[in-house]
Amino acid sequence: MAEFDYISWLRSRTPADPRVLVGPGDDTAVLVPPARPLLVTTDMLMDGTDFILADVGPRAAGRKAMAVNLSDIAAMAGVPTAAVVSVALPKAGGRSVGEELYVGIRDAADDFGVAVVGGDTNSWGGALVVSVTLLGEAMPKGPVTRAGAKPGDWVMLTGPVGGSLLGRHLTFTPRVREAQKLLEAADLHAMIDLSDGLAADLAHVLEESRCGAVLDAAAVPIHPDAVTRARATGRPPLDHALGDGEDFELLFTASPADGERLVRGQPVAGVTLTKVGECVGAGLWLEEGGVRRPLAPAGWVHELG
Amino acid sequence: MAEFDYISWLRSRTPADPRVLVGPGDDTAVLVPPARPLLVTTDMLMDGTDFILADVGPRAAGRKAMAVNLSDIAAMAGVPTAAVVSVALPKAGGRSVGEELYVGIRDAADDFGVAVVGGDTNSWGGALVVSVTLLGEAMPKGPVTRAGAKPGDWVMLTGPVGGSLLGRHLTFTPRVREAQKLLEAADLHAMIDLSDGLAADLAHVLEESRCGAVLDAAAVPIHPDAVTRARATGRPPLDHALGDGEDFELLFTASPADGERLVRGQPVAGVTLTKVGECVGAGLWLEEGGVRRPLAPAGWVHELG
Repeated sequence: MAEFDYISWLRSRTPADPRVLVGPGDDTAVLVPPARPLLVTTDMLMDGTDFILADVGPRAAGRKAMAVNLSDIAAMAGVPTAAVVSVALPKAGGRSVGEELYVGIRDAADDFGVAVVGGDTNSWGGALVVSVTLLGEAMPKGPVTRAGAKPGDWVMLTGPVGGSLLGRHLTFTPRVREAQKLLEAADLHAMIDLSDGLAADLAHVLEESRCGAVLDAAAVPIHPDAVTRARATGRPPLDHALGDGEDFELLFTASPADGERLVRGQPVAGVTLTKVGECVGAGLWLEEGGVRRPLAPAGWVHELG
Repeated sequence: MAEFDYISWLRSRTPADPRVLVGPGDDTAVLVPPARPLLVTTDMLMDGTDFILADVGPRAAGRKAMAVNLSDIAAMAGVPTAAVVSVALPKAGGRSVGEELYVGIRDAADDFGVAVVGGDTNSWGGALVVSVTLLGEAMPKGPVTRAGAKPGDWVMLTGPVGGSLLGRHLTFTPRVREAQKLLEAADLHAMIDLSDGLAADLAHVLEESRCGAVLDAAAVPIHPDAVTRARATGRPPLDHALGDGEDFELLFTASPADGERLVRGQPVAGVTLTKVGECVGAGLWLEEGGVRRPLAPAGWVHELG
């Protein structure tokens, strides 16, 4: 298609990367193979669902498209390396939307040393859709997965949660470096990034690990945004902390000895770690005022727009 | 999102793959790193642009989404290995659309031993969008790129071209195996898969190779579909052969000695190879009845719907 080629435009501004053997002249990029296990993740974002383009602009949308993928690599304590980007641009203003979108993508990619090595740029009559596939490699200790949590493990968070729709879902820093430092500092049994919400994502870990967990209601670090949201919705701030999504903090489990050591050694990797619960044999529970009750892993519901 | 998880559903039907270290339980897949250079390509297809969903159905759309990526790996004479898939499903009938779409994706993936290792499934108010990122690895002789054609090279095609919109753009067989066999049989200087059209894609090769080429009008293998299209459009069949896109045959260049050997040894890899021209110092030319005139690399224009 005789269309402005954003990828070439962008890469013409990129210094040569020793990891890239064949660059943007071909539809397929050729990369130096990683020495360690290869990580692959993909996320697609749509205008009206994951952001409101008219409100936030294409640069913030592009940044988020890369950042959510970086967060998935962080959840594995991986090292992100290279990305490809495919987009469907709206016909109206497509060229400037595309340029700004890629600036946002590059902002986030540059922050983590990721090479944007290729892509597919289209325009159409629909709303903006952007899909990023991010490659990475495991750290020497190997990838951390959702499977591996054990009864007795501490459940820990890298930061406060809830109310991210007020803006943090666009501006969050993916916990890539923090995850790597945590893995160097401790034996992480299981890890996930919080996209669906604390309760739902903990449930994903428990499902893969085949164990249960009890969350301590008093220990959950509630973000000020959750309090602000609670005022608007009339629900308790804790509900927002447990159920809102897109915090993109990491939840991980580790032995009590490692957990204690990490908490004593605060801050680890520049973030405040909080113990929010413990793994048990089965079930997902919330303990509040000495009473333990089942917790529904209520997922994140899109509330944009 | 509490939505049917097509990827998990699909992978529950997939036998364990020794290349996949961590599967669908995590958002990020973990793969055995390739020993040779890593290939990465991505293509996004949209309803109304790359297919008419209401006419062709989701299975054909899914098949095409994987096949166009396989064709990009074929253009490098690569070995496709693993894919991730992200989709935005229309809210109406999204579940059955998603299931059939993935069946089509798997049809094409299975034909070439590709493991579908992850993805991102969304639904929205817009039309179907599907993005596939395909990984592969180079053959021992290395990847074939668009750069490398030399004056004097023969320009060759793996099959007849033109009129693919009559149906072949959905049903073509990506030339993955053919490319590998050609690379084993000859020293391929440059290669590309025909997506934009013979003239436009040859121009891409010439641009990357910094040389020119003369096409022999009488030698271009015109597909019967191009003749059918010509009856409807009133343009010569050769126009359709040169300008229509989505043939997904391979165009490559090789030394005259290799070219002659390949043509003498027909069929190579089960396809009929045709010499359609020769590389020269500069320019893109069409020679017809002894007259050489400049050829515009008119790209493919979407004519669907």
